[in-house]
Amino acid sequence: MNYTPPLEDIHFILHEVLKAPAQLQALPSFADTDATLMHQVVNEAGKFVAQAVAPLQSVGDTMGCKFVNGAVTTPPGFRDAYQAFWQGGWPALACAPQDGGQGLPAVLEAVLFEMLSGANHGWTMAPGLLHGAYECIRHHGSEALKSRYLEKVATGEWLATMCLTEPHAGSDLGLVRTRALPQADGSYRISGTKIFISGGEHDLTDNIIHLVLARLPDAPPGPKGLSLFLAPKLMPDASRNTIHCERIEEKMGLHGSPTCVMRFDEATGWMIGEPHHGLNAMFVMMNAARLHVGLQGIGLLEAAWQKADAYAKERRQMRAPKQVMSATPDLIGEHPAMRRILATQRAWIESGRVLAYRTAIELDMAKHHPDGARQHAAQQWCSLVTPVLKAAWTAQAFHGSSDCLQVFGGHGYVREGGIEQIVRDSRVSMIYEGTNEIQAIDLLVRKVLGDGGAGMSALLHDLCDGLDLQVAIQASLHAQADSLNQITRDLVHAAKTNPELPFWVADDYLRAVALTLLAWSWVQINAATSSRALSADPARWVEPARAVEYWILPECHMRLHIIKARLM
Amino acid sequence: MNYTPPLEDIHFILHEVLKAPAQLQALPSFADTDATLMHQVVNEAGKFVAQAVAPLQSVGDTMGCKFVNGAVTTPPGFRDAYQAFWQGGWPALACAPQDGGQGLPAVLEAVLFEMLSGANHGWTMAPGLLHGAYECIRHHGSEALKSRYLEKVATGEWLATMCLTEPHAGSDLGLVRTRALPQADGSYRISGTKIFISGGEHDLTDNIIHLVLARLPDAPPGPKGLSLFLAPKLMPDASRNTIHCERIEEKMGLHGSPTCVMRFDEATGWMIGEPHHGLNAMFVMMNAARLHVGLQGIGLLEAAWQKADAYAKERRQMRAPKQVMSATPDLIGEHPAMRRILATQRAWIESGRVLAYRTAIELDMAKHHPDGARQHAAQQWCSLVTPVLKAAWTAQAFHGSSDCLQVFGGHGYVREGGIEQIVRDSRVSMIYEGTNEIQAIDLLVRKVLGDGGAGMSALLHDLCDGLDLQVAIQASLHAQADSLNQITRDLVHAAKTNPELPFWVADDYLRAVALTLLAWSWVQINAATSSRALSADPARWVEPARAVEYWILPECHMRLHIIKARLM
Repeated sequence: MNYTPPLEDIHFILHEVLKAPAQLQALPSFADTDATLMHQVVNEAGKFVAQAVAPLQSVGDTMGCKFVNGAVTTPPGFRDAYQAFWQGGWPALACAPQDGGQGLPAVLEAVLFEMLSGANHGWTMAPGLLHGAYECIRHHGSEALKSRYLEKVATGEWLATMCLTEPHAGSDLGLVRTRALPQADGSYRISGTKIFISGGEHDLTDNIIHLVLARLPDAPPGPKGLSLFLAPKLMPDASRNTIHCERIEEKMGLHGSPTCVMRFDEATGWMIGEPHHGLNAMFVMMNAARLHVGLQGIGLLEAAWQKADAYAKERRQMRAPKQVMSATPDLIGEHPAMRRILATQRAWIESGRVLAYRTAIELDMAKHHPDGARQHAAQQWCSLVTPVLKAAWTAQAFHGSSDCLQVFGGHGYVREGGIEQIVRDSRVSMIYEGTNEIQAIDLLVRKVLGDGGAGMSALLHDLCDGLDLQVAIQASLHAQADSLNQITRDLVHAAKTNPELPFWVADDYLRAVALTLLAWSWVQINAATSSRALSADPARWVEPARAVEYWILPECHMRLHIIKARLM
Repeated sequence: MNYTPPLEDIHFILHEVLKAPAQLQALPSFADTDATLMHQVVNEAGKFVAQAVAPLQSVGDTMGCKFVNGAVTTPPGFRDAYQAFWQGGWPALACAPQDGGQGLPAVLEAVLFEMLSGANHGWTMAPGLLHGAYECIRHHGSEALKSRYLEKVATGEWLATMCLTEPHAGSDLGLVRTRALPQADGSYRISGTKIFISGGEHDLTDNIIHLVLARLPDAPPGPKGLSLFLAPKLMPDASRNTIHCERIEEKMGLHGSPTCVMRFDEATGWMIGEPHHGLNAMFVMMNAARLHVGLQGIGLLEAAWQKADAYAKERRQMRAPKQVMSATPDLIGEHPAMRRILATQRAWIESGRVLAYRTAIELDMAKHHPDGARQHAAQQWCSLVTPVLKAAWTAQAFHGSSDCLQVFGGHGYVREGGIEQIVRDSRVSMIYEGTNEIQAIDLLVRKVLGDGGAGMSALLHDLCDGLDLQVAIQASLHAQADSLNQITRDLVHAAKTNPELPFWVADDYLRAVALTLLAWSWVQINAATSSRALSADPARWVEPARAVEYWILPECHMRLHIIKARLM
């Protein structure tokens, strides 16, 4: 068994904790999205994931993608599953009806991608960039481009890529050298080499739409000289564009997704958005893309936990310490060290769901809410929470799945168990869409210090609304938020004379925010669990709630202490 | 470049920090082991490692071991390197001269294996168990067995295995089912299946000596019914024993080492030691074997750091924050987040060396020191420090090499960089020779609570000898040791009424001890660096010393806080 969509938990978080239907129905665009519809869509998505995608997890790793003479073959079954995926309408879930979409809220797409990533991270890379490409073309593309490409990308009939990185330009896109020469017919000739292009070439769809960052001849140096172009694999007349896949990378994991070196050899493309404003056009995609990476983290950790939990319930080794010891070996799931690992992962998973689903809801609030102040608050939430979700939950996916591997002992280190694949696959999520270190700098330096700490202070204030300080975790949340607020003020002040300081402690700051958000999310979960009949197994809700308090939150104090010591 | 033996650092720790030659020359057995000799042996070892073993690191991973019809072929070059290794006398470094050894101190073998592991973890698995097998046969084997096998194992002409684990018996060896039937000629017929046998079959040596845990017909159940047997691949008359390799495992990493499923099919063996006392005979090997795994952690982390450091010194991305910003992108080694990662690993590496080399010296003190009290103190050190070294430094090898991978960004996730291999290879060291959770239980439950905390209290007292509390790190060490002492007392007390409690917090306890030992080792290092001209690059000694104080030690307080909260 690979991965079972955790439908009960997802419904619980959506409906009982976040009351998503009521929130979304308040928006005119989603007046029809009631609880029944959300239930149905999630259940159908779960069915598709379990039947079509989860069974391909192991073959994706062991067979991997093959590269022969510029063509890429994906693992057996990948194309059929993808064809069923787009024909089933799944990529278009949250696209506008006029573009061939279903006009559903972003949170349903978030749930879908969390499940897909848990079931098969490699396969899910293929449609992972579709929605971002759709938004980018929709908001910045010319009418001509939209009429040719928008519906194809919205429906997923054609897949899309983001061609940013070059050999010498990774985190620093300002160093991009790819050139775009304007032609008399309004098109451009694009020349350059792009690396680490997920799905740059494959056999899943007939055409592939590349979004390419390049420089016009008169462009200023640095990031403000980049323009964005759309260049298709197949031209409108069905001839091949001069875009070549030179090789695919051998990687630590994620073998189901071809990571391509792409050479643009005077390839034909058309500009998207304004000259030299290519990064702006791409930023449209960024919060959504980072949220998706955070969702990958949650899905992968859920998959790792499912495997470890199942093993802990069948394997017996040694007697567990108890007041009355057993006569024979106990299940390893009864040993404290294993219970702690399992409960800790559940705490991160459910917390991640609350935060990621809420962020997806806020994305829609920012777009569709009639009230400007509510829109602004939603933007603030997304801006501050997204980098935290991306960095902290991908780190947890890797470290937590490694902890789950530990539950298996030696059996976790061999391929058969399937758990080591998750550790290898998940590692990349700490790197792409901006490394976790870049997320921390984005959070602290760009966003928090950028407005003098006002946005973070408002967020922390909201998180502490209505707390009962008699309840341990609520008191912890209050104390953490309070310290974080003070330290934010101190950092704003200190950064003026010591601009290097925030860069040294950005990771600690992000962790402290993550642990404060985690505490907040468990306050919400505890409120909902107490009023509802859920799985009676204490390992599902009671032990994770305890793990938050006992094993997870103490790190927040440590992180704040580390920052404080540097402020003195 | 794969791995350069860090000779300057090793000499520095051995001679300046630990004053190893003077300490060892005080023992009659090592009266001739002066500084010059130790220098020479380490330099020669470094040369061998760099020339013969390091170049095989990548081929070991990509080609791996092949299994065909019961035979195992190791990667190209592995056999030649091994033959050169044993013929060069390296396995016999610390074996007794009368057994074909060189009678050198254990610490030189420790240095050798640290370097070997850093250069090529997979290859190093082959000779990794030799010394333990040698000690086991030497102390518990009959004269007949010794005359046939001791020298072959001492010199490494024949390699050895430890056959403990069975499909249903991993951490819990009491569940072992393999049977041994006594024969009229004094031998035994051994039947059963063993799994996870490193080097169970291979082409590196002609014969392989298996040490096998099995049960006599009249054995009581559980661990006290296990006896130990020696069963060779080739019988004294050169015929094949009935020991079959059924398959080798596909693993996350360590592809250069064949992990075998071994079937003993009424195989011929001879008992080592007393009936039902097989585990006692194996325990002889345990501290040394666990020290070796700790050394693997140090070697692997050094290898990962070397790669990341080299990359950080050649790759430029973005301008680093400084009072006067550069006009062009800076080396990534100038960015605070990267400097922090690199300095943190160096702090763990050098600390690990101090502790591991000292433990190797104490192993010799425990064996050879004329004074009984000094012997006892040495045994105490080994008993308490070894599980900490094993668990904390293998965890750091995995997590720290993953941090080093992060320095490479996307380039770290592809095979070419070589760093992801270290992450995959190192992961197993957290599992074998007793999982890290088992080490924590061994430390807290068996050793610390076992003597009512007396041994730990004495160790902490010694660590704090002669501290200057005006110096920040020395004050930190004092405070940590003090808290740890108090918490140890509280745990001894609490465990009487709540026997489950120590099992919940054993991991935190081990981390707190590790961080206290790390602080102590850096007090020693700082004392030695201040009196000696070392590499002037601040990243080598100044930034790591700062990393200890700023980024590493704060975890100790968190761990103690976690335990304290459970004691209330």
